[in-house]
Amino acid sequence: MRLSCYFMPTLREAPSDAQIVSHQLMVRAGMIRQEAAGIYAWLPLGLKVLKKIEQVVREEMDRAGAIEVLMPTLQLADLWRESGRYEAYGDEMLRIKDRHDRDLLYGPTAEEVITDIFRSYIKSYKDLPKNLYNIQWKFRDERRPRFGVMRGREFLMKDAYSFDIDEAGARRSYNRMFLAYLNVYARLGLKAIPVRADTGPIGGDLSHEFIILAETGESEVFAHRDLVEMGAPGPDIDWDGDLQDLVDQRTRLYAASDEMHDQARFEAEAPEDKRMTARGIEVGHIFYFGEKYSKPMKALITGPDGKDVPAQMGSYGVGVSRLVAGIIEASHDEAGIIWPDSVAPFGAAVVNLRPGAAEVDTVAEQAYKALIAAGKDPLLDDRDDRPGAKFASLDLVGVPWQLIVGPKGVADGVVELKRRASGERQTLPLDQALKVICG
Amino acid sequence: MRLSCYFMPTLREAPSDAQIVSHQLMVRAGMIRQEAAGIYAWLPLGLKVLKKIEQVVREEMDRAGAIEVLMPTLQLADLWRESGRYEAYGDEMLRIKDRHDRDLLYGPTAEEVITDIFRSYIKSYKDLPKNLYNIQWKFRDERRPRFGVMRGREFLMKDAYSFDIDEAGARRSYNRMFLAYLNVYARLGLKAIPVRADTGPIGGDLSHEFIILAETGESEVFAHRDLVEMGAPGPDIDWDGDLQDLVDQRTRLYAASDEMHDQARFEAEAPEDKRMTARGIEVGHIFYFGEKYSKPMKALITGPDGKDVPAQMGSYGVGVSRLVAGIIEASHDEAGIIWPDSVAPFGAAVVNLRPGAAEVDTVAEQAYKALIAAGKDPLLDDRDDRPGAKFASLDLVGVPWQLIVGPKGVADGVVELKRRASGERQTLPLDQALKVICG
Repeated sequence: MRLSCYFMPTLREAPSDAQIVSHQLMVRAGMIRQEAAGIYAWLPLGLKVLKKIEQVVREEMDRAGAIEVLMPTLQLADLWRESGRYEAYGDEMLRIKDRHDRDLLYGPTAEEVITDIFRSYIKSYKDLPKNLYNIQWKFRDERRPRFGVMRGREFLMKDAYSFDIDEAGARRSYNRMFLAYLNVYARLGLKAIPVRADTGPIGGDLSHEFIILAETGESEVFAHRDLVEMGAPGPDIDWDGDLQDLVDQRTRLYAASDEMHDQARFEAEAPEDKRMTARGIEVGHIFYFGEKYSKPMKALITGPDGKDVPAQMGSYGVGVSRLVAGIIEASHDEAGIIWPDSVAPFGAAVVNLRPGAAEVDTVAEQAYKALIAAGKDPLLDDRDDRPGAKFASLDLVGVPWQLIVGPKGVADGVVELKRRASGERQTLPLDQALKVICG
Repeated sequence: MRLSCYFMPTLREAPSDAQIVSHQLMVRAGMIRQEAAGIYAWLPLGLKVLKKIEQVVREEMDRAGAIEVLMPTLQLADLWRESGRYEAYGDEMLRIKDRHDRDLLYGPTAEEVITDIFRSYIKSYKDLPKNLYNIQWKFRDERRPRFGVMRGREFLMKDAYSFDIDEAGARRSYNRMFLAYLNVYARLGLKAIPVRADTGPIGGDLSHEFIILAETGESEVFAHRDLVEMGAPGPDIDWDGDLQDLVDQRTRLYAASDEMHDQARFEAEAPEDKRMTARGIEVGHIFYFGEKYSKPMKALITGPDGKDVPAQMGSYGVGVSRLVAGIIEASHDEAGIIWPDSVAPFGAAVVNLRPGAAEVDTVAEQAYKALIAAGKDPLLDDRDDRPGAKFASLDLVGVPWQLIVGPKGVADGVVELKRRASGERQTLPLDQALKVICG
């Protein structure tokens, strides 16, 4: 993309209401624009990152055997009356009346809709297990939306729902999601800690939150250091096999958010040098809640013995739009955002220091086209602007590599290559610079 | 995907309220499920097609120089008060009050939001032209939603908005979209006719609808046969060049929907053997409306002469979810849907006629894996079911190729290959069948 044709409205100053660094940087980098309290438009750069995160989540869900569907944003109130949650959900539910005075709502989650879909088609244990997920906009009418997309009202969520014939099956489904989530966060360059969680309004017996480490995080987390350092299981585990050991390895070590923290247990279970206290951000929540919805909504399954039983269900949520902010909280410096390569909006930027100078233009174009051919989706900074302003805006938006083409270097047959994360710079011939970027 | 693990709930009977063939087939093929009047969930097969169409639209928008953003589904009523449309829009607008009693609405279109974004950042003619598009769910509260996703209430639309400094620039932006739309429909295997259209509630001076031919279409279209037969311009035209000739070639020939039809003009402009009357479906609408929004909303641009003028705008809509139904209306037979390869939910199906028979399983798995490796995203029908039932459901859902593996063929070293569109069958060794499918 040629920056002269693009739409990347960077700002020098953050808006005064932006209290946290991700909110400040997302607005300054021209990623989002607030349209109403807690409701944002995604500008081109922000949308690119959002879509990349969405795609990582999708790939890991597919790998773990979940199947993608898409539920509508608006739901019938009657379904929530069936489950008993319509009145219980409170003011965060955006209630709507249509022109025929029928009660709708903007889905804050989709247990009822998916249970309704499930019960309409699936009747036999032979068709289980099933895990259906979707990546769709949700709405929660927060009393005081703030922190940008971290606590917005309209937000993009991946929500998956598993259905099994019995508790053992449901536990296997839960374990698959538990491990898939760790793979998602690892691909996004994040350190994630699974902590036991309160089940809250979703209800149920077993639940974990996933907290990513970020110095500027909203909540405190206490964990055994070995758990923090333990890698994600990786994509190549046997997803149909017994995953209990992999889960146990990660749940037997102490980990808790401040709400659930028990200092005495922490001290008993982790030696002093292994006790880690850090700040973090919740970016995922998984639940096993058994028959909570399937029983009142009569999502019954015929078992091998011919008897009908309510399906055993779980639900699994990742805040996709929240993760954009979460990654920034975890990875930035004073100059701006430092994207992990996996979700960077552009793989590299070619900085033309003297647009209009024929020889500089030639080398810059050559670099730009080579990076396109290599699939790096590069940005070409062809703006007529001061070098300092160019570097500042590219540092701000966090492109992982800057390939700098100026008249002096071109005369000497070299370019400058800067790595955003480390700030490291090297001067080298173009073909070598391209090799470094393309790995 | 192994069908035994998938979720493709095909039905023998269409629901009684499904009046048109696409609605019947989408429900029978397990593509969609109605959640409320005019509000649908997209089941896995339907979502795959929807995403493929969305991606074709995205690629052609990008090629024509448009830049993707994402606007929220909910919008502030105040913006629509600025443009004067809030009261004027009528009952199709879904009006919402949040917990603080603030007026929101579910966007039926986004002229106001995009104008607000534009005016916040873009001030100089040097930053023009700009064309910003998004692919987002919209809501229009139709009095009588029907015909499945053809006339739903919650629907997926690609809407693009162009901004120029003057009318000549706006015309160039309009021409780019006019031709890009023809490329979209051609890639979807559709014959599309651009007809001059009424500008309706969007307002403005110049407008075209795009009508795809389908015998079961909702409206009548009258056109010069040469226009119908004229191919799309193709991706390789010079998008930055003068496109007026390419547009003129396609607008000088007679074409009109029944609303705008003038029989006398038709007879004067087209010789009898060139007069075509056919049925079709509107799947796109483009508008040039100048200052209609930029003037009241003060989206002003400083020109080269230093004077501020309202931006010249156009808007360009494609019904993405509607196109799923439109393609089915244009391409089906008594057995079911016939997908063009470009949007087929699976590239091919491997039909295992005797799951559990070791040698049949081996060949079916071999075919399945070869098609995965070839990027054909195959479906493996490994269900324990009668051959007739398997063929019927694969014909219904419209997979373009069926590669049939049975015990007799395996003993003879051959498989059967069926092309869905023509019904043509051939018996041949597996490696040759794979070559036919992979082209």
